Amino acid sequence: MSAERMKIGCAGLGRMGKRHALNFLQRTPRAELVAASSPDLTELEWAKEHLAPYGVRLYQNYDEMLQQEGLEAIVVASATAVHAEQAIKAIEADKHVLCEKPLSTNVEVLTRRSPNPSLTLPQKKPHLKVMCGFSRRFDASYRDAYQKMQTGQIGTVSVLRSQTCDKLDPSGFFVAYAQFSGGIFVDCSIHDIDLALWFFGASSKIRSVSAVGNTAVEPDLRKHNDRDNAVGLVEFHDGRIAYFYASRMMAAGQEDSTEIIGTKGKLAVNTQPQQNLVQVYDASGVRKEMPQTYYDRFEYAFVTEANEFTAAVLDDTPLPLELTAAVQAVRIGAALQESMVSGSKIWFDENGNRLQEARL
Amino acid sequence: MSAERMKIGCAGLGRMGKRHALNFLQRTPRAELVAASSPDLTELEWAKEHLAPYGVRLYQNYDEMLQQEGLEAIVVASATAVHAEQAIKAIEADKHVLCEKPLSTNVEVLTRRSPNPSLTLPQKKPHLKVMCGFSRRFDASYRDAYQKMQTGQIGTVSVLRSQTCDKLDPSGFFVAYAQFSGGIFVDCSIHDIDLALWFFGASSKIRSVSAVGNTAVEPDLRKHNDRDNAVGLVEFHDGRIAYFYASRMMAAGQEDSTEIIGTKGKLAVNTQPQQNLVQVYDASGVRKEMPQTYYDRFEYAFVTEANEFTAAVLDDTPLPLELTAAVQAVRIGAALQESMVSGSKIWFDENGNRLQEARL
Amino acid sequence: MSAERMKIGCAGLGRMGKRHALNFLQRTPRAELVAASSPDLTELEWAKEHLAPYGVRLYQNYDEMLQQEGLEAIVVASATAVHAEQAIKAIEADKHVLCEKPLSTNVEVLTRRSPNPSLTLPQKKPHLKVMCGFSRRFDASYRDAYQKMQTGQIGTVSVLRSQTCDKLDPSGFFVAYAQFSGGIFVDCSIHDIDLALWFFGASSKIRSVSAVGNTAVEPDLRKHNDRDNAVGLVEFHDGRIAYFYASRMMAAGQEDSTEIIGTKGKLAVNTQPQQNLVQVYDASGVRKEMPQTYYDRFEYAFVTEANEFTAAVLDDTPLPLELTAAVQAVRIGAALQESMVSGSKIWFDENGNRLQEARL
Amino acid sequence: MSAERMKIGCAGLGRMGKRHALNFLQRTPRAELVAASSPDLTELEWAKEHLAPYGVRLYQNYDEMLQQEGLEAIVVASATAVHAEQAIKAIEADKHVLCEKPLSTNVEVLTRRSPNPSLTLPQKKPHLKVMCGFSRRFDASYRDAYQKMQTGQIGTVSVLRSQTCDKLDPSGFFVAYAQFSGGIFVDCSIHDIDLALWFFGASSKIRSVSAVGNTAVEPDLRKHNDRDNAVGLVEFHDGRIAYFYASRMMAAGQEDSTEIIGTKGKLAVNTQPQQNLVQVYDASGVRKEMPQTYYDRFEYAFVTEANEFTAAVLDDTPLPLELTAAVQAVRIGAALQESMVSGSKIWFDENGNRLQEARL
Repeated sequence: MSAERMKIGCAGLGRMGKRHALNFLQRTPRAELVAASSPDLTELEWAKEHLAPYGVRLYQNYDEMLQQEGLEAIVVASATAVHAEQAIKAIEADKHVLCEKPLSTNVEVLTRRSPNPSLTLPQKKPHLKVMCGFSRRFDASYRDAYQKMQTGQIGTVSVLRSQTCDKLDPSGFFVAYAQFSGGIFVDCSIHDIDLALWFFGASSKIRSVSAVGNTAVEPDLRKHNDRDNAVGLVEFHDGRIAYFYASRMMAAGQEDSTEIIGTKGKLAVNTQPQQNLVQVYDASGVRKEMPQTYYDRFEYAFVTEANEFTAAVLDDTPLPLELTAAVQAVRIGAALQESMVSGSKIWFDENGNRLQEARL
Repeated sequence: MSAERMKIGCAGLGRMGKRHALNFLQRTPRAELVAASSPDLTELEWAKEHLAPYGVRLYQNYDEMLQQEGLEAIVVASATAVHAEQAIKAIEADKHVLCEKPLSTNVEVLTRRSPNPSLTLPQKKPHLKVMCGFSRRFDASYRDAYQKMQTGQIGTVSVLRSQTCDKLDPSGFFVAYAQFSGGIFVDCSIHDIDLALWFFGASSKIRSVSAVGNTAVEPDLRKHNDRDNAVGLVEFHDGRIAYFYASRMMAAGQEDSTEIIGTKGKLAVNTQPQQNLVQVYDASGVRKEMPQTYYDRFEYAFVTEANEFTAAVLDDTPLPLELTAAVQAVRIGAALQESMVSGSKIWFDENGNRLQEARL
Repeated sequence: MSAERMKIGCAGLGRMGKRHALNFLQRTPRAELVAASSPDLTELEWAKEHLAPYGVRLYQNYDEMLQQEGLEAIVVASATAVHAEQAIKAIEADKHVLCEKPLSTNVEVLTRRSPNPSLTLPQKKPHLKVMCGFSRRFDASYRDAYQKMQTGQIGTVSVLRSQTCDKLDPSGFFVAYAQFSGGIFVDCSIHDIDLALWFFGASSKIRSVSAVGNTAVEPDLRKHNDRDNAVGLVEFHDGRIAYFYASRMMAAGQEDSTEIIGTKGKLAVNTQPQQNLVQVYDASGVRKEMPQTYYDRFEYAFVTEANEFTAAVLDDTPLPLELTAAVQAVRIGAALQESMVSGSKIWFDENGNRLQEARL
Repeated sequence: MSAERMKIGCAGLGRMGKRHALNFLQRTPRAELVAASSPDLTELEWAKEHLAPYGVRLYQNYDEMLQQEGLEAIVVASATAVHAEQAIKAIEADKHVLCEKPLSTNVEVLTRRSPNPSLTLPQKKPHLKVMCGFSRRFDASYRDAYQKMQTGQIGTVSVLRSQTCDKLDPSGFFVAYAQFSGGIFVDCSIHDIDLALWFFGASSKIRSVSAVGNTAVEPDLRKHNDRDNAVGLVEFHDGRIAYFYASRMMAAGQEDSTEIIGTKGKLAVNTQPQQNLVQVYDASGVRKEMPQTYYDRFEYAFVTEANEFTAAVLDDTPLPLELTAAVQAVRIGAALQESMVSGSKIWFDENGNRLQEARL
């Protein structure tokens, strides 16, 4: 292992952008954060204080940052709407890319029907490392579960249940957010869908999706074709079943849990959520506090992600997850969202083509 | 409270029949088991040893037992296929009835389209107590959860997740059993459906059902239109959602758990299953054992059921659950089973009538 | 198994007396509660309503009850101070005896130095079943732990930690109660001491005891040489160690837990206390409620105790626990109490004789 | 916050030394590891590969390292026997010091009776930051518990139970190790003692200690006056009680847990130990794996320790724990060890002086 370090720039300095920037600055020994960009002046003010003193150059314009000499990689942590565009530009500029999920809210952007297909572009530049940041793939508990499944501890995996449930944000922020997020299945369940593709295998072929949702706390979500509670059912051509629950109204905190159910056992990840190892005994009973946000829950997964992406670039080793899975996840998420809104079950053939007529 | 005791007979002495008979004999102080019937000679042999010494009269013929003088009530614990018929005969003979679930595997038997409608019959004899034995309604944990919901601790209930998962029986018994059970949704999920009707309110109107299933361990189940893993999604006209998982392949034991999700909190029942309060620390980690069967889990609920049914009869007080909910549960279970087999989503209007054409 | 039933009388109808009376009346099929006595008129009023209608004869005078024809057994559930006296009278009247713990608060009453030695008396009447009711011996979880230890799952047991911790009773009742209870080690820890003797073996020989205590909530306990928190350390001649914690100031509920630590594993009983299988998720986190009293926790153990005592009498089979262990438990409890008050460590030789001088 | 970095050297490159070196190299952004020393050639080989490429200078001689220009601080992570000596030399050379626990196995070295008193030395150089590394003080769960106690959530803390229990090392390594470790109370329970001083307050005055131990798996420990299981009881002059369990024979893994018991509640830290958030359901039940070593459990606490020590040095802010507590902890640990070996209870007056005669 050489002492050489990967020079990376961070696109976007919002909530997640700040975290990625600091992780690459302070917690990724083999990386060197050399640049950061944001169109937002307040975010740049923050960066002047927290990044610039360590030699990070700041840009208001993403395209200018891409020109910085010596820059080798970009972490795309901007608004979801520009993920795909910025990732494509970075690839065209011959940079390695770590892109926040989802790649896009629109499958078309990602596939051959698009003029700038992000999927085919990486194929033309196989020397580049391009990864979508599904943080759970880097979480120690999910990895332990995956390794246990791989060694056969639970037999053949047949059913997966997974949920991404956010604590209620009473500010109503998520109504405005829904306009651009792609909807609850693309924004939240995308993680659970990715887990299904990981545990079932990336070659799993979707057969049908159906979904329902309601607006228990925020009826205005319907304006953007969204819901605050949603349950989706996905069937694969080999018979495996995945089912998902997403919610934006949890009272206690972030509750992201998964069960992987096999013919010889079950692996449960975080079905007993907890902030830490403290239990409080008081007049109300025995109590554990919960993580309040997904970053509370997955902070170290993001650090691992930064370090492993860096290692893959420097050592030219395979990335821990393939881009095709990220595209497939967006496709499934968008189909679930459509099924929830239309009420119709959606079918696919074994080649992944959507069947236009309902199968009876 | 008088010292008078209710005289009851037990129809059926199979696995559950024996338990009901002994519960009424030994653990129901206000009841007196005076009769028991079974067409099976081996079962009658058992009864000669365990029931007859305490004054219980035995019958091979159910109809004869119904004639026994002084008999006031019948617990129907025979094969599922004869539940409805025996219950109807008992009502006709003017006996109170506690009937094991499901009332029937066939909705028609239970409704006005049938020549001997079990539903209308009780309405003609309002002095009789007729109850379907959904054991979870009598379980201390479910009751505590219900009471907490009623006092508003979790706000408005919007989503219910529930599962009934049996330990794998490697003898393959359940393949033969599937022929008569009505299928996994009618046999297993019926409990979860009943919970949804309980927690959402008996007047909840079903809007749509969709379901998928697979045969992960026993492909022969397909011969009887059944599956060993099934996930069902039920939407109600008021927007509430219930989703169910049933399985016959659990490795660790019986795993019946439920989450009731409201706008201000969540109640989880048995999402950390355990046989008792022992934990074993050894080289494999820290471990709790699980109940192996539903009776391990619900033994005391059955005792409570026997005692409360007896009290309702003796004191002429309302039964803890209404017969209409039991009929509605069979209807939903049968629709889920059909949806799983056909692949089609099934819709209902607000009057409970099935919509013949898929709604788009 | 014959249908014959054991005729039993209940001495004392206070809090525990009522429970024992009802358990023998309603939940012990092979027993028949035929008599009950209490010097307290309010308690007798209660009995007129709840026991008399079922044929139970009531007495204000214990001695008179002993004369009732056909009476075969007595459950002594009166005030601790008269436990020994009433048990001895019952034995003299040739009755089987189930006596609430502790046998006595005074070791002398129980041993050969006493004029009416309860210990030697039973030895003269070996046809009688005389048992001290240590409820934990009948609890399903403790039995499971014991059976696992017996089958070698944790190797050689070397250390036992156990605690009996009551919820704070803010009425200050326990200050008055301390006057007669024998102190926190005799009243509370007696259960834990009995567990040590059970899991280590009844022949375990005590080597030393030392204890400390404090009065965190109720300084007045010092008037009666008692404390509200106490920790005791017991060493046996074979090197095994038991240590105990007792408290009367728990905020959340009754917390009686035990760890049995062996060379190949550990068994933990109730180190995650819970009232039932419900978890509440709300703004405060994830919460289980706790049993509020020891009867909440051990209700079914008392029912099992009644049934097993009855079976031992009717079938003339060995009792599940020996009287000598109960006497030994009182001896250890009294020594711990003395050590806590004096501050001195107390030593015993291998014959159980106390060493008068501190060993150096 | 300036971008300036603290230059630190690491003394010792054994198991813990390697971890401290890597933590300061890679996970402490404001520190720069510039030197490392070890008398062991194998350890230096490791350092040539893992530290030297990043500019770390290596030394076989500790004293030479102390001369390196620009060196500002030392982390002492060598063998316990030289902790005190190396710490004192560093202080004399005007370096800030982070010293692994225990400061010493011998109280004399640390106090005024010693020719080179480590305690008085720092007092003469108040500009230096000298800290003993009690890792639990930096653990997120312990800190959360402490903060909850501080805000009054559990009333007045009266009793503390804490244990440090290592997984059995079947190599017998710990027999040889016992010769130099100071014994199980100084080596293991020192952490629990430090917790008692933290939660009870550093000014808590010890009143008495008593302890017992056994050798359940390794009788040879007695040669070095040590045991493999030990229970200690500590009483403070204000009435508070702390009791400790230490063991070297756990089957399942590292089990370090603590309960802080107050008049209005209890805080439990790690009484449900777990390696991560995965549960395995299989034929043996439901299982969590456990951390195998204390580093598995406390890895992130060590990283926090390195970062906070660095911040205190650079920003001249108070250290999170005072050196006097570390000395007091060694004193209590040594007294417990002596009490365990001699069998005698040991008393102290309010000034911390040992009472030579047993108090009666």
